[in-house]
Amino acid sequence: MNSENTYIQMFGIKTPIIKEGDDIVQILETSLEDAGLVPVDGDIFVLAESAVGTAEKRIVKLASITPGERARFLGEKYGIDPREMELVLQECDEVFGGVPGAALTITKGVLAPNAGIDASNAPEGHVVLLPEDPRKSSENIRSRLEQRYSCRLGVIIGDSRTQPLRLGCSGIALGVSGFIPVEDARGTFDIYEKPLLVTYKAVADNLVSAAELLMGEAGEKVPCVLIRGAPVSMVNESPDVPTISMEGCMYFGNIIKGRKEEKGTGKMRDSSTG
Amino acid sequence: MNSENTYIQMFGIKTPIIKEGDDIVQILETSLEDAGLVPVDGDIFVLAESAVGTAEKRIVKLASITPGERARFLGEKYGIDPREMELVLQECDEVFGGVPGAALTITKGVLAPNAGIDASNAPEGHVVLLPEDPRKSSENIRSRLEQRYSCRLGVIIGDSRTQPLRLGCSGIALGVSGFIPVEDARGTFDIYEKPLLVTYKAVADNLVSAAELLMGEAGEKVPCVLIRGAPVSMVNESPDVPTISMEGCMYFGNIIKGRKEEKGTGKMRDSSTG
Repeated sequence: MNSENTYIQMFGIKTPIIKEGDDIVQILETSLEDAGLVPVDGDIFVLAESAVGTAEKRIVKLASITPGERARFLGEKYGIDPREMELVLQECDEVFGGVPGAALTITKGVLAPNAGIDASNAPEGHVVLLPEDPRKSSENIRSRLEQRYSCRLGVIIGDSRTQPLRLGCSGIALGVSGFIPVEDARGTFDIYEKPLLVTYKAVADNLVSAAELLMGEAGEKVPCVLIRGAPVSMVNESPDVPTISMEGCMYFGNIIKGRKEEKGTGKMRDSSTG
Repeated sequence: MNSENTYIQMFGIKTPIIKEGDDIVQILETSLEDAGLVPVDGDIFVLAESAVGTAEKRIVKLASITPGERARFLGEKYGIDPREMELVLQECDEVFGGVPGAALTITKGVLAPNAGIDASNAPEGHVVLLPEDPRKSSENIRSRLEQRYSCRLGVIIGDSRTQPLRLGCSGIALGVSGFIPVEDARGTFDIYEKPLLVTYKAVADNLVSAAELLMGEAGEKVPCVLIRGAPVSMVNESPDVPTISMEGCMYFGNIIKGRKEEKGTGKMRDSSTG
């Protein structure tokens, strides 16, 4: 990775509203031209999953869905439209709880409230499902953009997620093509030349978080951000975004063992020893 | 917030190695001048907590620490130097588990492995503690930079954290001054003019994640990134970065109740009902 880069530019690409079946690459090409932007080697395109899902006809009319018994039960329990809950159950790998308005799921290997189903930015009475295969979507979009602009590009299908104990959404990469999504800093050295302990950088997630500064969650109509100058390692493939198991997860691993936490900040006793 | 902004620039500010007691603002001024950069209204400075902590003399020589019984027990349990573990216990609000190499704590209200104590980027045999009061640190740095450059600026003291079930670190804001760290999008409308459900944007965390693209985790010697053009809401104060309780947390709230998850992706039964 080129750690000499110390300058990054981010361009929000405004587009018309992306509609079902639209050719998102064609729309991007037009919008880039309107913005006077010509992609160059190493540019990374971050695309909102809702725009990609919409273009891929992943829009579902809720009235067309008949919720099953479990969907009605969980919809009631979590305050979710039972028809949307039915879609959540169809889309997710696993449901393992919920809060009012959100069933907590693992979907396509990623933590996703309500299986990543997006009710906002969908036509009235409709929802947008995640792209069927975000990795494949990013790959297809990248290959077409690279052909069109004759340069090596990266593409990310991005979504937003909350972080533990934090208010507000940050970025997460659902699918990546053209660069290494997580940099492994093992074997590098700190500023005192001491070898670093295991340290990974969530480059792809960070690129999405950066893009969300311009995308917004609301009606900004900026479904794509072009990031130029980011020190990423370009590759001519679409690597899986590495995930870790619940057991291996610093947060879940500790907690799913059913340990009790100590609230408050009074005495500090490792609850797992009590 | 100015949602017309569609262009952001990020400048990595290379500095000499920040040493104990250094005047970080003076170093920034020199480095900005060397880089030919003059801050303007709305610029956001993201500073690495390790650099700020070092300048604030938050460096501790491990040899000077005598671990207590609990620190020795937990150090053994999690594979952490018992002297560092002693510091973790002194720094944190709460320990609620751990994995090899990391005790999972809440420190200054934020999830922080090992209380945010940084062994890398510290002199041999030393560690860097988090700044005593990151909010105050960001406020002090902002007021001096604003005086020096006669414009309204934002300052973030940033750190890196892993996200649940993800490999790699993203950004988190420990202390913020001069802008609203979390934007509340309630009352705004989506692209179809439908009112949005509750949606918050972790603007400050996203700015830190963006900055980490240039900072890196290793010896890049880029402890500061200047972000220009970010659509943030500037304020003349230092708002607390809002956090949420474990009970209210989508991740912890579900899990600390001791529910069992279902692994695998076979049958989907809400474990909380089984």
